[in-house]
Formats: sequence, structure tokens, C-alpha cells
Amino acid sequence: MAKTLEFWFDLGSPAAYLAWKRLPKFVAQTGASVVYKPMLLGGVFKAQGNASPVTIPAKGKWLLGDLARFARRDGVPLAYPPGFPVNTLPLMRITIGLLLRNPSRFAACVDALFDALFGKALDLRDEQALAATLAEAGFDPAELLALGSDPEIKQALIKNTEEAVARGVFGAPTFFVGDEMFWGQDRMEFVAEALAR
Amino acid sequence: MAKTLEFWFDLGSPAAYLAWKRLPKFVAQTGASVVYKPMLLGGVFKAQGNASPVTIPAKGKWLLGDLARFARRDGVPLAYPPGFPVNTLPLMRITIGLLLRNPSRFAACVDALFDALFGKALDLRDEQALAATLAEAGFDPAELLALGSDPEIKQALIKNTEEAVARGVFGAPTFFVGDEMFWGQDRMEFVAEALAR
Repeated sequence: MAKTLEFWFDLGSPAAYLAWKRLPKFVAQTGASVVYKPMLLGGVFKAQGNASPVTIPAKGKWLLGDLARFARRDGVPLAYPPGFPVNTLPLMRITIGLLLRNPSRFAACVDALFDALFGKALDLRDEQALAATLAEAGFDPAELLALGSDPEIKQALIKNTEEAVARGVFGAPTFFVGDEMFWGQDRMEFVAEALAR
Repeated sequence: MAKTLEFWFDLGSPAAYLAWKRLPKFVAQTGASVVYKPMLLGGVFKAQGNASPVTIPAKGKWLLGDLARFARRDGVPLAYPPGFPVNTLPLMRITIGLLLRNPSRFAACVDALFDALFGKALDLRDEQALAATLAEAGFDPAELLALGSDPEIKQALIKNTEEAVARGVFGAPTFFVGDEMFWGQDRMEFVAEALAR
């Protein structure tokens, strides 16, 4: 029986972007069945008393170099959008909205948004840039942007974020295999071991 | 020519303990020549606006499980001394004192202290337990404890800690290969790559 892997993420996290990029091959190798869990990392930070590592200047400086090493190792581009770390609330509502309303297009949307942010360093706070990114990926921008004001979708994002906090999530990306939690794109080897048990 | 690897550490860090345990094999494999840099992690945290991860409860809880995975992988025992995280000032003065006054016995002393703290979970705040640990490792406890009140040694620890801060260190263990900095026992594969360049 294929084991289930929960992938908790926020589009604002470059570490989650790197994990997302590794995920297709990882899933092929482990045979895991992925449950996607969009959450609002800002809400998680606040509830857990945590903060973005870039709020500590020395740590933030080191982290950029560290993530660049992982990106080089994985052969993926890594850049940072203007205003990083950015408020991802509108993006996460689109993301969880697609998961609820059109799950077969969910991965394509996440791909397009992650690539725009951390592959091309686009400023998705600019609604025109966001609309162009969505249109280029084959979506109707107006339809997706409308998801952002849907109360059921807003509530679903709140619910996921609360569940994350309740289960001990404090950063992104976070993986669960059963009750075992793993934080970071740098723990995927341990995740693979847990899936193999 | 063998490359130089700087190893910055504080005896209070379980991650530094795990790195220390891997170091002999790592040095044999990479051919690196190690420069040991004892520092006071509490001072580094304060200067950099950082704090022990255990100050964030969800992160601290996860970290204990994470370090346990590394310890299992490496086949080393891992336990926590009473009062963890503990004030390591007396221990770090002994450590840097040996490095200055009797460098050939430095590694044996660090071994004994790390094993006492994180192998056997001894309370080294208790001077009798500390003296017994040092005696068991073949040291004269009175002689080593006297190092702690030597102004030159006190000053050397302050100097190392200030140098750490100036070079961007914000946690332990930290490795340098030339100017490239690596934080964490979980980055030793990248350290090995840097040494091989």
C-alpha cells in the first residue's frame, strides 16, 4: 500500500519552492501519495512565536547562500521577488481555492506561481503581473482572482493554518508521514526513510 | 595542499556534539586540517539577535526528534543534561584554556565533556560531577578548573566570540572553508564539497 505524504507549504517560502521542485522525482522514487496542505506561514509564525529567519540579519544572509547551494545541487534557478518576504495571502487563497474547486489544475497553478516568484523573481503583488502569470499557465485570471473573495475558500485557508499550528508546524515546508513531522527541504532523505518503513 | 577547516563550537550545543562525533572520520575522508574555535554561543546569540531554537516550543520539540534521527543515523547516543540548555561559560573556559596551554590534550578534554553532557546526560553545573568527569579522562581537575580564573584565557574566549560575531556566525556548529560559512551538523556534505574544490 502506498504511504501518504503530507506536504505543508506557503508560496512565500523559497525552501518550500526547492522542495516543490524535487517533489515529482521524489514521489516517483518513493511511490508516496501526496496530500497537499496550503497554509499561511505568517499565521503559523505568529501562533508559534516564530519568525522568518531573515529577521535575524546574520541568519538571513547565510540562508540565502545556503539555499543557493541547494538550488545549484538540484539544478533549479533561484531568485527572490521584490519585497521578499512577501505577503502571500492572495496567492494562497488562489492556491487552496484551486485545490478545492479544480484539483486537477492545482499542481499547474502552484508550478506557475512558484516559478514566477522564485524562478523569475516577479512581483506578484502587482495584480497585472499576477494576471499575466496565471494567463500564461492557461488559467482565466479573473476566475482565479475571484476565488480570493469566496468565504468558503478563505475559511479553508484559516482551517489549514489552524490545523498546522495544532499539529506543531512552525515553518515551511513541513512534511508528515503519519504523525512524524519533518521540517525543511533538507530533510527529504529522512522523509524517504520514513516512507520506506 | 590540505585545506583548512574551521570548526566553531560551544559545548552546550547538541548539534555541535553530533558534528564533533563525526569529525574524526570526516577529517580522514577529506584530509582537512582542522582549526578549533571554541566560542560562547550565548554571547553570539545575544550579539546577533538570535536565540536557542528551544525558546520556540514547537521548534524545540521538533528539533529534539530531528537530532535523535541524526544520532541514530550516526550510531551515537544522545541525551540531554539537566537544565538544558545550560550555561557553558565554565566549560568553555576550560576548553579554550587547554587549547592555549596544552593543545595535545584538547581533543581528549572536549571528548570527555561532550560525552558527559550529551552521551551520559550528566549535570556538569555540579562541580563534583565536573571534577569526576575530568579525572576520569586523565586530567587534574584542580588544574583545569584553575584555568577558568586566568584572565588571559577569559580574554581569549571573549576574543573568539567577538570574531565569530564579526564573521557572521549566529549558531553552532559553524564551519568555515576560507570565507564560505556553513551552519549545522546537517551541512557537512556541503563542507566536504567545499574542501574538495
